[in-house]
Amino acid sequence: MRQSQLFTRTVKELPKDETSFNAQALIRAGFIDKVGAGIYSFLPLGLRVLHKIMNIIREEINLVGGQEVLMPALTPKEAWKKTGRYDDFDALFKLSGLENKEYALGATHEEIVTPLAGKFIFSYRELPISIYQIQTKFRNEKRAKAGLIRGREFSMKDLYSFHVDQADLDRYYEEVKAAYYKIYNRLGLGEKTYLTYASGGAFSKYSHEFQTLTEAGEDHIFVCEKCRAAVNQEIIKEQSTCPECGNAKLEEKKGIEVGNIFKLGTKFSEPFGVKYKDANGQEKLAVMGCYGIGPSRVMGTIVELFHDDKGMVWPESVAPFKVHLLSLGENEAAEKIYNELITKGIEVLFDDRDLQAGEKFADADLIGCPYRAVVSKKTLATGSVELKKRNEAGSELIKLSDLSAKLK
Amino acid sequence: MRQSQLFTRTVKELPKDETSFNAQALIRAGFIDKVGAGIYSFLPLGLRVLHKIMNIIREEINLVGGQEVLMPALTPKEAWKKTGRYDDFDALFKLSGLENKEYALGATHEEIVTPLAGKFIFSYRELPISIYQIQTKFRNEKRAKAGLIRGREFSMKDLYSFHVDQADLDRYYEEVKAAYYKIYNRLGLGEKTYLTYASGGAFSKYSHEFQTLTEAGEDHIFVCEKCRAAVNQEIIKEQSTCPECGNAKLEEKKGIEVGNIFKLGTKFSEPFGVKYKDANGQEKLAVMGCYGIGPSRVMGTIVELFHDDKGMVWPESVAPFKVHLLSLGENEAAEKIYNELITKGIEVLFDDRDLQAGEKFADADLIGCPYRAVVSKKTLATGSVELKKRNEAGSELIKLSDLSAKLK
Repeated sequence: MRQSQLFTRTVKELPKDETSFNAQALIRAGFIDKVGAGIYSFLPLGLRVLHKIMNIIREEINLVGGQEVLMPALTPKEAWKKTGRYDDFDALFKLSGLENKEYALGATHEEIVTPLAGKFIFSYRELPISIYQIQTKFRNEKRAKAGLIRGREFSMKDLYSFHVDQADLDRYYEEVKAAYYKIYNRLGLGEKTYLTYASGGAFSKYSHEFQTLTEAGEDHIFVCEKCRAAVNQEIIKEQSTCPECGNAKLEEKKGIEVGNIFKLGTKFSEPFGVKYKDANGQEKLAVMGCYGIGPSRVMGTIVELFHDDKGMVWPESVAPFKVHLLSLGENEAAEKIYNELITKGIEVLFDDRDLQAGEKFADADLIGCPYRAVVSKKTLATGSVELKKRNEAGSELIKLSDLSAKLK
Repeated sequence: MRQSQLFTRTVKELPKDETSFNAQALIRAGFIDKVGAGIYSFLPLGLRVLHKIMNIIREEINLVGGQEVLMPALTPKEAWKKTGRYDDFDALFKLSGLENKEYALGATHEEIVTPLAGKFIFSYRELPISIYQIQTKFRNEKRAKAGLIRGREFSMKDLYSFHVDQADLDRYYEEVKAAYYKIYNRLGLGEKTYLTYASGGAFSKYSHEFQTLTEAGEDHIFVCEKCRAAVNQEIIKEQSTCPECGNAKLEEKKGIEVGNIFKLGTKFSEPFGVKYKDANGQEKLAVMGCYGIGPSRVMGTIVELFHDDKGMVWPESVAPFKVHLLSLGENEAAEKIYNELITKGIEVLFDDRDLQAGEKFADADLIGCPYRAVVSKKTLATGSVELKKRNEAGSELIKLSDLSAKLK
């Protein structure tokens, strides 16, 4: 994409009340715009990142048999009344409409997916079933000051699974856990993300969060470096040792919850009467699990983790573009290079604007594409471009004829 | 996809209050599920169709320079107060949250996109700008009985353009109009879709709707078959002739509004103060246009247009799968064919279920993939499959070795 045609540009002025680093950097770089507390628009560069995160999640969830659906945000009060969460779920946005209808904005979708699955579950032969969506959620959050980390409107991949019994749920739970590790690795978060034991509700001793360690985190967790596991604050009150190895030396750290997986048991299949007939013709309740990852929160977390004082440093897998091509007064030669790279299927942001070199370098650092390729009179004199990785100090001259192979 | 693994199946029981054909057929075939009046979940087959419609629209809007963003659904009351639409827009869902915040659910996004664009517009050099999103809208509709045609929650592609003057808006408006024709052609709606003159507000004599003719339509329009143009009810009260050729023989027809384009002028740039400096340094208001197409409504319209008494008949461009492969007791041979077709990149729904032939045929007709390929003892005896187009009566035997080439 030509930067001269991008409607956004890097901005100097920040909303006064925006204190989180991730929102500040993303707003300055023109990736997002603040609409209200905890409410943002995703602009072209930011939406590219968000879509890449969503697609990585989608690919891995498809691989564990997830079937994608799209449920509504406007959900009937009656469904929430059935589970008691209309009154118990604090952060639920409520509203009313014509014909005396009352709604809640979907903060999570057990109340919708459970009766939906129930319509298609009759016998054990239909189970297990995994249903997910990548959809917008709404929560009336008290503290909405952490940028994309805690939004009042945010994106969520929510997966729900239905099983004949606890054993099959346990098996699938481990499968999804493994998929989550793959997802965080692909997103560049693997090294800093810890499986964290949390309380499990009525049907399981534990549930699990995935916590990414960063000083920007709002959660306090207690890490066992031996197991790369952790426990959250709730658990540490009950037990002060690692649930995996018994290690008593747990270190307190701050983290962002970038995912959670939970064994729901029959908590929701019961009120909605989701039953199947087993091999003996006996009716039994389906046993459920749920598994969430918030793509917009992941995006904010990546910014918190990967930046320096000049700007963001995107992992290649989610970068808005792989290469930022800067023309320093050599638009004709740069144009040729741009066309060659995009013909080869390489994603390029082409700074073809009539600006000073200093401004272009500053913008490239702020936006944070993995590679910066500079075309100037000096580089062209040796038939080269100057290629620099965003996360390395040095640069090298690359022959024009070698550039696309180098970036492929 | 293997049908044995699809969690949905065709259903016999319909919601009692569901009177529209499109919702009945889509629910019966397991494409959508009804959550409330005007509120639906999209199930795997339905979501595939919806995504294909969205991608066709996205491709064509990108070609006219649209830059994709994603604005929030939760929008601050203050923005709507500024334009007077907080009180004037009948179908606005309103709600309140913490910190005394009041919101409207986005029913359209001029109130959000105009100040957003304003942050990046300083001089005439930045213009024109085109910004769009494919996003979920909410309208508290009185009549929500037409299935996907009139939802309380529905998807919308909304494009907004910003120009230096009316002449540039006029030029771009024609460009988008041409893109819309391309979109309806690709969606299979071209033949039945008419440019329809509607009232234009303060800044233009006319706006335009795109109306698809069908008895299921809720709008009454007056068609000039000479020009393939029409006028809507508002316009016919003021003039009873074709605005393009003066033809006085206009025929009353029913239609579904599948898109609309509108010259907004400075209606929104004025309250939000979106100004640019012209070449002489003079401040001027940006001149705006807006352009909508609802992908979910388009989906319902396609069903209304393309069906017979056995079920839906999807155009290839948006069909959930190109081929429905039916194994009649020959799963081993069918499996081979399935694997070959998907290796060749052909989208196949593979009915590998243990069901009677009659049920499989009925499901294939209801689901409506463009091709049905039957593998049975009889076809295999001649090394063939029986291939039938959903919209043709006859079938032909195709040699196994020719099948993938035939379907490519």
